[in-house]
Amino acid sequence: MKSTASFRAHKVVEACQEIAGFSDNPAYLVRTYLSPATRRVHDFLRSWMDRLGMRPSIDAVGNLRGLYPGKRQNAGRLLIGSHIDTVPNAGAFDGVLGVIMGLALIEGLEADRLDYDIEIVAFSEEEGVRFGVPFIGSRALIGDIDAPLLQLTDPRGVSVAQAMESFGLNLSELHAALLNPATFAFLEFHIEQGPVLDQLNAPLGIVEAIAGQSRYELTFHGKANHAGTTPMSLRHDALTGAAEWIGAVEQQARITNGLVATVGRLEVTPGATNVIPSEVRLSLDLRHTDDATRHAAADDMEANGRQIASTRGLQLSLQKKLDQPAIPLDRGLRDSLAAAVAATGRDGHRMNSGAGHDAMVLARKLPSAMLFLRSPAGISHHPDETVLVEDVQAALDAGLYFLKHLNPPPTVQKNL
Amino acid sequence: MKSTASFRAHKVVEACQEIAGFSDNPAYLVRTYLSPATRRVHDFLRSWMDRLGMRPSIDAVGNLRGLYPGKRQNAGRLLIGSHIDTVPNAGAFDGVLGVIMGLALIEGLEADRLDYDIEIVAFSEEEGVRFGVPFIGSRALIGDIDAPLLQLTDPRGVSVAQAMESFGLNLSELHAALLNPATFAFLEFHIEQGPVLDQLNAPLGIVEAIAGQSRYELTFHGKANHAGTTPMSLRHDALTGAAEWIGAVEQQARITNGLVATVGRLEVTPGATNVIPSEVRLSLDLRHTDDATRHAAADDMEANGRQIASTRGLQLSLQKKLDQPAIPLDRGLRDSLAAAVAATGRDGHRMNSGAGHDAMVLARKLPSAMLFLRSPAGISHHPDETVLVEDVQAALDAGLYFLKHLNPPPTVQKNL
Repeated sequence: MKSTASFRAHKVVEACQEIAGFSDNPAYLVRTYLSPATRRVHDFLRSWMDRLGMRPSIDAVGNLRGLYPGKRQNAGRLLIGSHIDTVPNAGAFDGVLGVIMGLALIEGLEADRLDYDIEIVAFSEEEGVRFGVPFIGSRALIGDIDAPLLQLTDPRGVSVAQAMESFGLNLSELHAALLNPATFAFLEFHIEQGPVLDQLNAPLGIVEAIAGQSRYELTFHGKANHAGTTPMSLRHDALTGAAEWIGAVEQQARITNGLVATVGRLEVTPGATNVIPSEVRLSLDLRHTDDATRHAAADDMEANGRQIASTRGLQLSLQKKLDQPAIPLDRGLRDSLAAAVAATGRDGHRMNSGAGHDAMVLARKLPSAMLFLRSPAGISHHPDETVLVEDVQAALDAGLYFLKHLNPPPTVQKNL
Repeated sequence: MKSTASFRAHKVVEACQEIAGFSDNPAYLVRTYLSPATRRVHDFLRSWMDRLGMRPSIDAVGNLRGLYPGKRQNAGRLLIGSHIDTVPNAGAFDGVLGVIMGLALIEGLEADRLDYDIEIVAFSEEEGVRFGVPFIGSRALIGDIDAPLLQLTDPRGVSVAQAMESFGLNLSELHAALLNPATFAFLEFHIEQGPVLDQLNAPLGIVEAIAGQSRYELTFHGKANHAGTTPMSLRHDALTGAAEWIGAVEQQARITNGLVATVGRLEVTPGATNVIPSEVRLSLDLRHTDDATRHAAADDMEANGRQIASTRGLQLSLQKKLDQPAIPLDRGLRDSLAAAVAATGRDGHRMNSGAGHDAMVLARKLPSAMLFLRSPAGISHHPDETVLVEDVQAALDAGLYFLKHLNPPPTVQKNL
């Protein structure tokens, strides 16, 4: 049994690596929504599903879905999956791992049937690379595909609707892509894409919530002047003001538990060595799993910026670009996952996700859960992204335990 | 007499404004080395010199020079002047004012002869716009025109030597452009180009020294990472490190008397809203009239940067791009200027120049002095650059007093 589990873990890793060969670009891995490489992934997954007797099909937005029926008909359905598209110059595990984990778990059932059906889904789009909007795959399951989305165009001017038609999809079947009403939960395996588990030397993380996010664009307006002839006391330097504010933002994030704050973009005008900066434009990305904490922090940072600007004779303008609420994952499923990890002898670290995931979309309609696998060195969105075979084995063990001890909720059973 | 002085001051301002109409570009004022607009300035100045009986000529690098002989032959020579080239989108007074002041002072002598000759020079090049190297005009007078300089090319591929030839200059006469051996001092009138006199409500400034300058390029190297998944404690954010350093640099400049420090350029890599910056490249411009103070400050700032980098797990690389020593101006001439300003009933503020000027070049060979005229609102290198008529009058009054009380030094007199 142990050696079989180890074999299966190796197989998961190898499958991900094989799929990483299906790329839109011969030089590096990038797989965008409905590209030819997507079809090759579909073919790979289809034949695996066929071997497991899963009746695979492709829905109206290009998600590949396969059903592994339970002992009885209409006994409720657990959805397991993740996405198969990638960012440019990607690694082999972000997304795909969550699909392959689902198949490996069904394989691990060794033809046993459970009290409920399992549906595996390979979401066709999550990263938002081709059309600039993420989660097209999972949004189809919750009925969130609307006309403006279908009219978005990629850099070549192809619309979402046209891309679907070219791929052989049928938009009139969009309703059939909706979640089956018997579905009672969603489970997503995903690499952490961060350094937390690696630092803790923990293989697995149980995700408590997906952080909410604020994005701002700020501009400090000062006064350009000669770097040689303007004494320090007579300057209105937009950059030293921005630097002071960046320090204050960092300090506030450091002392606020769970808050992350990032200034990732910063541009200086005029940007000449011997001219005092007149304008600094920068971005702020702020995330926390508690929306009130995040909003309070944003307010404090804005007040701080205005204070700094006023002290220095600068003007501050500020624009909110995004305010996306936090998504708590299902408490019962979290506890069940934690119990499964513990029962199979591993440490499962309770943690939050700072990145968005398909589970964030599904959680709007379904009790949802996520299990993170350690990202060695925290590396992701990079060819060096990897996963440890022993962590995959730990996840498979915990996953199997979870599946075998999971009961469809009474409300679903009542519907029988 | 008062009304004549006021008339002359108006005439100075009007002459500068008329010359501002001679531009390489019809849309704004820009006058680069040896451009057609330069010739129009020469024509304007020549005819004025002719009216004053000054025998104008153009030297081998395109400087216009004219002599106003003294009472006796070979009694020593005072050089007065500044430059006639401009930056792009310039104001009317930077440079040109110092030439016109010289002519107006000779006019103010009302045909009286002094104990020494006065040579007026309109340097053809100071800003360094066309060939990227400043001070071509004044360097010719101290014998600092070398082959590499002549081979520099402008953006159209024209070399300095070719530009000279096209303008009708003769490089073989370079030796004739050297300072006449009888020259015993250089005097330059210039707008301050900074806010100090304006803040003090003082019309004139006596320049004690021209600041030395250090330029550095620094790079903070950190580690790019996901803005959502990387806790604050596990970041190696190049931008927060750079921001802390910018704050430290500003603080050090604020507490070091006379030091100015500017970070004018800053670029962030990769520069995405949701990615922790991996690299920040920035410039440091550091100026002080005491070289030891400047070097000590540069050393402190470097040590500070290394300390910040080490604390944050960043690397710092640093390149020195410029280390130009401070130039003290002549103490005797400074005192004479101050006495002249005081004798004509104005306040002369003793100050330093943070910007470079032709006097910096001449001071390597000659006792040199500069008189600054207030820059209203500190504006320069901009079409709004201006000068007050009453300040010009104050400078003319002080200048005339200075000329009438100046004695050629004994060494020169001995050479007679």
